[in-house]
Amino acid sequence: MPEDRKIRLGAFMRPVTIHTAAWRYPGAFPDANFNLAHLKRFIQTLERGRFDMFFMADHLAVLNMPMDALKRSATVTSFDPLTLLPALAMVTEHIGLVATASTTYNEPYHVARKFASLDHLSNGRAGWNVVTSSNPKEALNFSREEHMEHDERYVRAREFYDVVTGLWDSWADDAFIRDVTSGVYFDPEKLHVLDHKGKYFSVRGPLNVARPIQGWPVIVQAGQSEAGRQLAAETAEVVFSGLSKKEVAQQYYTDVKARMLAVGRDPGQMKILPGAFVVVGDTAEEARAKKRHLDSLVYPESGFASLAGQLGCDISGFDLDKPLPEDLPPSNASHTARQKLVAMSRDEGFTVRELAQYIGGAFGTLEMIGTPAMIADQIEDWFTSKACDGFNIMFPYLPEGLDDFVDKVVPELQRRGLFRREYEGKTLRENLGLQRPENRFFPSKKSA
Amino acid sequence: MPEDRKIRLGAFMRPVTIHTAAWRYPGAFPDANFNLAHLKRFIQTLERGRFDMFFMADHLAVLNMPMDALKRSATVTSFDPLTLLPALAMVTEHIGLVATASTTYNEPYHVARKFASLDHLSNGRAGWNVVTSSNPKEALNFSREEHMEHDERYVRAREFYDVVTGLWDSWADDAFIRDVTSGVYFDPEKLHVLDHKGKYFSVRGPLNVARPIQGWPVIVQAGQSEAGRQLAAETAEVVFSGLSKKEVAQQYYTDVKARMLAVGRDPGQMKILPGAFVVVGDTAEEARAKKRHLDSLVYPESGFASLAGQLGCDISGFDLDKPLPEDLPPSNASHTARQKLVAMSRDEGFTVRELAQYIGGAFGTLEMIGTPAMIADQIEDWFTSKACDGFNIMFPYLPEGLDDFVDKVVPELQRRGLFRREYEGKTLRENLGLQRPENRFFPSKKSA
Ligand SMILES: Cc1cc2nc3c(=O)[nH]c(=O)nc-3n(C[C@H](O)[C@H](O)[C@H](O)COP(=O)(O)O)c2cc1C
Ligand SMILES: Cc1cc2nc3c(=O)[nH]c(=O)nc-3n(C[C@H](O)[C@H](O)[C@H](O)COP(=O)(O)O)c2cc1C
Repeated sequence: MPEDRKIRLGAFMRPVTIHTAAWRYPGAFPDANFNLAHLKRFIQTLERGRFDMFFMADHLAVLNMPMDALKRSATVTSFDPLTLLPALAMVTEHIGLVATASTTYNEPYHVARKFASLDHLSNGRAGWNVVTSSNPKEALNFSREEHMEHDERYVRAREFYDVVTGLWDSWADDAFIRDVTSGVYFDPEKLHVLDHKGKYFSVRGPLNVARPIQGWPVIVQAGQSEAGRQLAAETAEVVFSGLSKKEVAQQYYTDVKARMLAVGRDPGQMKILPGAFVVVGDTAEEARAKKRHLDSLVYPESGFASLAGQLGCDISGFDLDKPLPEDLPPSNASHTARQKLVAMSRDEGFTVRELAQYIGGAFGTLEMIGTPAMIADQIEDWFTSKACDGFNIMFPYLPEGLDDFVDKVVPELQRRGLFRREYEGKTLRENLGLQRPENRFFPSKKSA
Repeated sequence: MPEDRKIRLGAFMRPVTIHTAAWRYPGAFPDANFNLAHLKRFIQTLERGRFDMFFMADHLAVLNMPMDALKRSATVTSFDPLTLLPALAMVTEHIGLVATASTTYNEPYHVARKFASLDHLSNGRAGWNVVTSSNPKEALNFSREEHMEHDERYVRAREFYDVVTGLWDSWADDAFIRDVTSGVYFDPEKLHVLDHKGKYFSVRGPLNVARPIQGWPVIVQAGQSEAGRQLAAETAEVVFSGLSKKEVAQQYYTDVKARMLAVGRDPGQMKILPGAFVVVGDTAEEARAKKRHLDSLVYPESGFASLAGQLGCDISGFDLDKPLPEDLPPSNASHTARQKLVAMSRDEGFTVRELAQYIGGAFGTLEMIGTPAMIADQIEDWFTSKACDGFNIMFPYLPEGLDDFVDKVVPELQRRGLFRREYEGKTLRENLGLQRPENRFFPSKKSA
């Protein structure tokens, strides 16, 4: 294996777990998702485990589900990612800090400046997960009557990205001379005024923050559709995919890296990390028993709500004991999620009820359930067969599930030479093996 | 003096100093404004000095001035307040954390959730300075062609405030029951969906963050015009005024507190804090010499730019050696700032050049220049004659000017019994002597 191909590990931490019953698991902190002291403990443990990054998803509304399911959800109160991460930056030194920010319900100037500020505060550890907002109800919190149409959201996202990265390049890296004698603080030749005018945005600039330590914070993306893949190929440096089958993940990997080549990017400059829901046991049976117990704590109706949410349509008319109908009513929801569910129902012979119970827990994510060695085998297999460059680990319950991964699985990966023992660099980019982007307005001599 | 009337002290810290030449002063940190290690030192010193709050102004653009002046400004690279304050929350325990956020170029859902998150992270120390954006060039960074008209900005601000406070009241204080046995996380009876529909905003809610620790973060305001005073009277709990004459400050104090009574609020529930630019010396002569040296470091043209900026019009046609014309060209800039400058030129006999040099340094703010005893005298005089409830202290250069205030002026105020020796409470509200607001949707039994 070439030296530079090491497994990359993210930790999916907003919410702290995607499993809807996690807060009820014996020994779990019921308020893990909204307690700073707990979150500080978690991130410090992850840093001890040499994780690449702490990842926070984001939604600009409470989950879109009926009250009977919503009232059972531990995620209705969560920290804003861009408010929590600066705090966590102060209690860590190495781990990357990745926040999600929607391009559909934000303004690029705000986003550019908050991530630039976070990157400076954390000494180059910021990452931005670019999403177009998967919860259509967010529209109602932002003075709109309905969610923007799916592909149009991606058109806006692409322009948004151009503006944000253009604003990050407002200042050359060496613009600030601070010459006390002459009284000149910066060199005006090293300031670029963006003057962007496009379909969705007119943004003059410059940004009122120096260029980020990393040049640009690391660009993360998690879209799955045609438009989502294309955006990833053009812009992303880390991709979180939601794929649970190895063959599908391999196809995805090949497809997106080929698209990168087609737009002139080096495929090594993107790390593809599927989510993996990991339950560790001392024996395989113990691990399976833990998962069974966890799933048994899921309220059945919550499964129906999750299913309806993922399908983006009402399921109350469906026969619960039959497979999912192939001809679903039309919807503006994620295409990929719908197709995956239809396929799962057909391929695994799941009825609507079974499908609902299954995804009501961990939403049908890739699962790794077993001993540390079994989990390391599965990680190694996916990695070496180029289904991924690593994983975005989802913990089943906190703190135990997280501690188990760091104390039992990470050492196993290290023994196999698959995962770092020490952080390689100072910044998130350096640890991920990603290049620092050139300033498009102030290219370095050698590339100019 | 009644026990509860104690002097309140804020520290004006974004920028870390308003004096344009401060970064050139001997011994000053030239990068004080954009260096986390320095900012950490400053806030910890302020907390040792028992300051009520650390205040960050905010502008969504670089300063609106010609390049020849801009290139001499140390404020072009600054942290976003809502990104810096969570970091500083982790290295302090008591001091309030006040960020400015514009109602003209923001969405209320974002603002509500970021301040709610900060309030939770800091254990009840957040404050929101509600501004309508004084720099008209901000419009160009937010896809608008021009700044919204002055009074209309205040109409929007009032509605914005209603939405934000309504969102903070989404959850009753005791909504989260987290009943592991029944699997119910919150009581649906204790959730309120706002469903706001108004002139500028339609916001459904609820907020995806629990009610802030303080109920609401402390509301701060700094408007001076008729519309600004009225907004303050209706909403503000702390007011930063820019008044430099005691008689004018007394009139302002009386006016705004009378307006509070007129709208049914208790005047004790607002603390009025003028800005005060303080230079401490061991002798009066030493303090004056420091100020003279500091002003001598101001680049003359910067004064012209500041003056043009404050007037909101081109001054290049004015005769520099005559007083400011009374019939200024019309402008959308702050009415108050313009009137103050016209009055200053007339009353003090300042020519345009003199006015520019004077405001080029500390922008015509109230100055306190002398020994610790002289400064304490001036503070006491303003306070006891009801020109204010305390001050928002502006430091002339960092770290020396800040250290001098904490080490020399604060002990003098404490000896006189005017200022606290220990923080009284845990939250910013408790320290300021402000009531915790009732939840408008879930009033407590006694008031219901
Ligand atoms: C690991 C992962 C994390 C995601 N996080 C978010 C998020 O925080 N906010 C959001 O609106 N969507 C999130 N999504 C949804 C994606 O942004 C995207 O909408 C979804 O994968 C469907 O793809 P499509 O939009 O290309 O159809 C996430 C998806 C995955 C797989
Ligand atoms: C101490 C102080 C701090 C201020 N901070 C800001 C700020 O951070 N951002 C801003 O746009 N305006 C700021 N202002 C300007 C006020 O919001 C307001 O626009 C100005 O005082 C003029 O009042 P008016 O808008 O009522 O005419 C500040 C004013 C003062 C006195």
